[in-house]
This record gives sequence, C-alpha cells and structure tokens, in this order.
Amino acid sequence: MYRQNFNNKEMLLPELKERRDKIRVFMAQQDIDAALITCNVNLIYTYGRVVSGYLYLPLNAPARLFVKRPNGIEGEHVYSIRKPEQIPALIQECGLPLPSKLMLEGDELPFTEYTRLAACFPDSTIVNGTPLIRQARSTKTNMEVCMLRRSGAAHDKAYQQIPSVYQPGMTDRQFSIEIERLMRLEGCLGIFRVFGQSMEIFMGSVLAGDNAATPSPYDFALGGEGLDPSIPGGVNGSLLQAGQSVMVDMGGNFYGYMCDMSRVFSIGKLPDKAYAAHQVCLEVQDAVSAMAKPGVACEDLYQTAIDLVAKTGFEDCFMGIDQKAKFIGHGIGLEINEAPVLAPRMKQELEPGMVFALEPKIVLPGVGPLGIENSWAVTLEGVEKLTHCREDIIEL
Amino acid sequence: MYRQNFNNKEMLLPELKERRDKIRVFMAQQDIDAALITCNVNLIYTYGRVVSGYLYLPLNAPARLFVKRPNGIEGEHVYSIRKPEQIPALIQECGLPLPSKLMLEGDELPFTEYTRLAACFPDSTIVNGTPLIRQARSTKTNMEVCMLRRSGAAHDKAYQQIPSVYQPGMTDRQFSIEIERLMRLEGCLGIFRVFGQSMEIFMGSVLAGDNAATPSPYDFALGGEGLDPSIPGGVNGSLLQAGQSVMVDMGGNFYGYMCDMSRVFSIGKLPDKAYAAHQVCLEVQDAVSAMAKPGVACEDLYQTAIDLVAKTGFEDCFMGIDQKAKFIGHGIGLEINEAPVLAPRMKQELEPGMVFALEPKIVLPGVGPLGIENSWAVTLEGVEKLTHCREDIIEL
Repeated sequence: MYRQNFNNKEMLLPELKERRDKIRVFMAQQDIDAALITCNVNLIYTYGRVVSGYLYLPLNAPARLFVKRPNGIEGEHVYSIRKPEQIPALIQECGLPLPSKLMLEGDELPFTEYTRLAACFPDSTIVNGTPLIRQARSTKTNMEVCMLRRSGAAHDKAYQQIPSVYQPGMTDRQFSIEIERLMRLEGCLGIFRVFGQSMEIFMGSVLAGDNAATPSPYDFALGGEGLDPSIPGGVNGSLLQAGQSVMVDMGGNFYGYMCDMSRVFSIGKLPDKAYAAHQVCLEVQDAVSAMAKPGVACEDLYQTAIDLVAKTGFEDCFMGIDQKAKFIGHGIGLEINEAPVLAPRMKQELEPGMVFALEPKIVLPGVGPLGIENSWAVTLEGVEKLTHCREDIIEL
Repeated sequence: MYRQNFNNKEMLLPELKERRDKIRVFMAQQDIDAALITCNVNLIYTYGRVVSGYLYLPLNAPARLFVKRPNGIEGEHVYSIRKPEQIPALIQECGLPLPSKLMLEGDELPFTEYTRLAACFPDSTIVNGTPLIRQARSTKTNMEVCMLRRSGAAHDKAYQQIPSVYQPGMTDRQFSIEIERLMRLEGCLGIFRVFGQSMEIFMGSVLAGDNAATPSPYDFALGGEGLDPSIPGGVNGSLLQAGQSVMVDMGGNFYGYMCDMSRVFSIGKLPDKAYAAHQVCLEVQDAVSAMAKPGVACEDLYQTAIDLVAKTGFEDCFMGIDQKAKFIGHGIGLEINEAPVLAPRMKQELEPGMVFALEPKIVLPGVGPLGIENSWAVTLEGVEKLTHCREDIIEL
C-alpha cells in the first residue's frame, strides 16, 4: 500500500529526493534558482502528501516546507507559518539567498494567489513552472510505476465484478452507482484529479447506447449528456436496453495514482457491425502498443491509429461522431491527463517511465460505444500493460 | 427536477436575467463595463449550464456566449469560437464597444488563463471579478432557494436510510461507501464543488471516534486522517467500535446546489458526557438560528455560539481539539463554501436569500464527534430550515 511505503521514511526520502532532482534538472536548464510549490498534486509529488503550505525547492540546497495546516508536522526543514509573506525572511534565516529566478505554478494557481506569492519576492524574476513540473512528472520513477501497477491490479479486481452487479431493468445511472461502489470497495479513493480548471468529472463515466455520442463540454474521449446541466457528462438516466453496448470508463485512483481502463459490455447480443468495430479498436491497440517504445513520436502513434481505422470504414465514428476527441491516448499519473498526449502534431517522443492510457474507441449509432482502454508503462524496450481484464465485449 | 425547469426556456430565461442583473448591480457600483465569465460554477450561475467557453456580460446590453464545446449550442447571442482571441472582434461585430473596465475571475482562473484573457483586451483595465460574483451569488434567487430546498429533501431521504446500511464489524470506510451509494441512489450528482484550488474532498466525510480529531490540511469543520496521504481527510479505515460516535457529513449536490447536513450515530451506547455535548450543540443551533435574520452580523452569530459553549465546559473540544475550525457556519450554493462565513470579525450582515450551513460540533476524546449541521435559508423575518432529519444521536 502507498501509505505503508510512504510512512516508511527509509523508502520515502530517497524517492522524494529523486523526484525533486528530476525537477531540478529542468530548472537548471532554464537558470531557475528555486521553485515554490503549493498545488496539491505537486505537493504529493515533491513532499509525499497534501499539506496546506509551500515546498520551497532551491536548485542547490535541500527543500524547505512552510506549512499552515495541519498542525503537528515537524522535521529538520519544516517551518510553521500563518501566511506566505513570512517565507522570504525564513529563507534568509536558513542562510539561503533569495532566488533571482523563481518559478510558481502558473497554469494551476489562481491569478490572485500567483500574484500574491510573486509579490513576496519583489526582486526575483518570476516564471511559470507548471510546464516544467509536468515535464518532470511525465516520466515516472520506479516507485511511481509500481504504484500505477498496483492501481491497475486493484482496478482489474473491481472491473472483474462488474457483471455481478448488473440487473435487467437498470438505468445507466443505477449501473454506474453499483460500479462506483465496487471501485470504492476495492480501495479507490474516489477523488478524480484532472489538470485544467474547467475539467471535472465524478468518478468516471458509464456510457450506454447513443448517449455516448452526445457532445459534452469536457475534453474527455467521449461525452454523454449527464444527469444535470451543472455537470453535463456521463450517464443520463436512460434504461439499459437490449442491443445496446455499455462502456465503463472509471478512473482508478487507488494510491493517489490514476490508472485508466475502459471495457465494453452488451445488453444481450449486438449487431455484427459492433463486434467488427470492437475488433478494429483492439487491432489499433495491438498496432500502437507494438510500435510504442522510447524514441517513437506521439504523433506517429496517433497517425498509425488513424491510418488503420481509415481502411475499415469506421473513421466517421472513431473517437466520437459529431464531436471527436483529437487524441487516442494521454499520460496518466497523479492526474488523469498528464503528458504525453497521443495526438496529431505531437512531436514529443516516448521515454522510459512514461505511463499512458491508450483508448481507441468507436461510437456506433443505434448501438453505443465500442473499443478498449488500457494503461501502459514505457519500458526500455517497449511497453508494459498495467491493466489486464479480458478485452472482448462481455454480455450481461 | 432542475433539468426539467432548466430545459423550460420560459422559466430559464427570466431566472438567468435576474442572476445576471444581480451581478450588474455590483459592476455598476465599481464602474465595470463588462465581465468575461468562464469558470464552471459561474457559467452555471449565469448561463444555466457548463460549457467550454465564455459568457460576455456587458453592463448595458444582453449577454453573449462564445462557445468552444460542446458542438451544437445555438441561439441569438451565441457564437462558436476556437480560441478566446477571437472574442474582441466578435464583440465589435455585435456593435458593442470594447470595455474600458473588464472583470475576470481572478480568484478562480489560473494565472496563465487570466493573463491570456487580459491580453485579448489590451486597452481595457482588468480587475478581479471573483469577489463581486461571489457577492451576487451569496443571496440566492427564489428559484435557487427552491433548488436548495429540494436538494435538502433528497438529502433527508438518503440520510433516513443510513441505519439500514450499517452492519456490525464494518470499518468507517465500508460504512461510508454504503452511505455514498444511498446518496447517489437518491440523485446526488456526486461531484463536490469547493471554492479554492487547494480544497478538495470526495463526497463528504464520515468521521468515527478519535479520527474526527485528526488535523487535516483542508479548511473543513473537522479533519480526519484519510486513507492515503494524497487525500488526507475523512475515513481512515478503522473498525467501528462500541462506544464510538460516527458523524456523517456528506455534501448533497442534487441539482447542482450543495446542501450540507451532518448527523451523529452511535455504535451502542455512548458515555453520558457525549449526550451532554450533543445537547450543547443542539442548543447552539437553537440559539443561533433563533437570532439569525436579516441585519444580524455574522460575527455576532459566531460569538453567541462561543459564549454559550464557554458556559458548558466543552470549549476546549468545540470545533475540533488540537486544530479548531474558526467558523461555525458557511454559505452554501453552487459550492460548499460560499459567502457568508459565520466567523469572528465577520461584520457582514445576513440578507434575505442567503443560505448557510450551521454546524456546531464537539469532538470528545475517546468517543468521537457530536453535534449537528443543517442548512438554512434567510427569509424576510428569520430563517427556514432546509434539512429535516431527526437530530438526536441514533444508535446503530
């Protein structure tokens, strides 16, 4: 368990040092002296837990934690504060110089919080550090890959029980609720972390029939109408009906790390075309995962999928119908949408330690969503699959 | 149902006009010509649903919607865009002047999004509009009070079933999962919206025994250790044991509007002191709610609670032990933490239409959390209670 590892200081400290040093490598390339980190996912990454406070990460000295809440955190480099304005004086009391170039989490911190922190360092040049931290986070440490592997295994265990909670006459909403419960019972923390202030989702989505083609405002692979205009995505309360496919795409946050997996179920038999569409997605997965290894550009993985689908006649309903997702995969980790993105014009190359979800999906009008999603870790020679449930369409 | 109301244009349009005009009143006071609104809760407030896009709200002309996603939104004042840089030219094509003073959501938008939008209007003075929008949102329209009333009723229905899902030998985590399911089955949308980038929680909290006193980084009324350092709040996986109290404090987002309610259960009988502590909280609720009406200052409501508790000997464990919450109540609405806040030095006065949760709570070492939380709407003469479950300690 994450907690067991992370309460073990002997494992935690070198792990955190490794992560901080990954960030420092990029800081050095941009002549950045220090980072001030306060957003929850970046605190988990660099400090191992959420606090209300700030991790100050100098390029050439140990990190300092300035903490507001909770009470009771102690340590050699831990300072209790009431407000961030106290930080510069405390840095100087440690014998550290104030940074000439400081990075803040500009894509994540609200404008007023960012400018308040920047004002604490009036003589420093302030730059946006979010892209750099996300770059560091995009290649996982060995322990992070281990967390994601465990997260995938727990995700598997929940998904294997899905057929047991289906009952004829259910709505998509009721089915979703029972699957959410399975996920939680297997240890899912529930919280679903997404990068980007406008992105939000409850635990994931269950999309049945034509609802899978309903465009949503969110930039997930498929949409769905949702139950309410205040959260227009996912289930819409329709009865599950014979001849429909149902795609379960829940986020598997088991140890802070989000695995991603989709599986398709059917209410009775589906038309032949549905099985053909599903097979196309499995072939895309085979082709892309066979090709994926360090040095391969993300745009080439995307193009491989598009070229393959174009030969099958399913291109009009690949990754949606009216509103198509413009990617076939995305990095995962502490958030569901990390780097890299498997999308057109993405010249970024895969590197060992990257972990991504690959999700070729087809929405067939009158039937519903088909396809597959698994999580994959990039190894030295290729990729390792982290999610292992059976991949055919399971009849409920 | 919210959706039924809101798909009914005849009800929706005057409602949205009323909300926008509430914002315009404050804009006029600060000579702000226009607002550009893009954060999800503020879009729900002003446009009735989440989109990926921007509502442009001029002081003296109808609002315009500039939408990126989903496809298919149409209307007289709706414009499809790919990026925000297109907005100024479209405003001018409508025959509207560019604003001399424009407000953006500065406490909510990430720094880089805010500065990108600001750069689209190089000749405008840009100000932070978040406090003003939150001020408008703090007094609810009649329809919003109606939504919260309905949300409270659904919340009641879920809570009434809580004893039926308890089984001896459960952990706090298992009990929480079954309560989450009840909430979802009664229509809870699951998503829990909180103001502030560092605030996060899954569906709410279930706190049993001494775990309720564990300080957390989050600024909720009580803490809890949590299951993992990546989300250190709420249940910690402990067995529920005889002599413990268990407080259920789930967020009731049923129609986009968050009601808030806490109830206490006991595993067998509790020590007499626990019932006394619970009674003190009920008396605080009685005293504060009897006093609450338009014109009463929030700090006076807070002080009333503190003075009453001070006479009982429970002051050391009121609102936590080592780490105490510095409030006894908070506004609710689209988010769980809206204005007003019932806290020291809060001179803000109650106004008709404000809706708040009042949550006097005591944590008793060796027993657990006691107390009560209900949601209340401020009327012309006093307050209306929106949550109605029985308030005594229910033995499981």
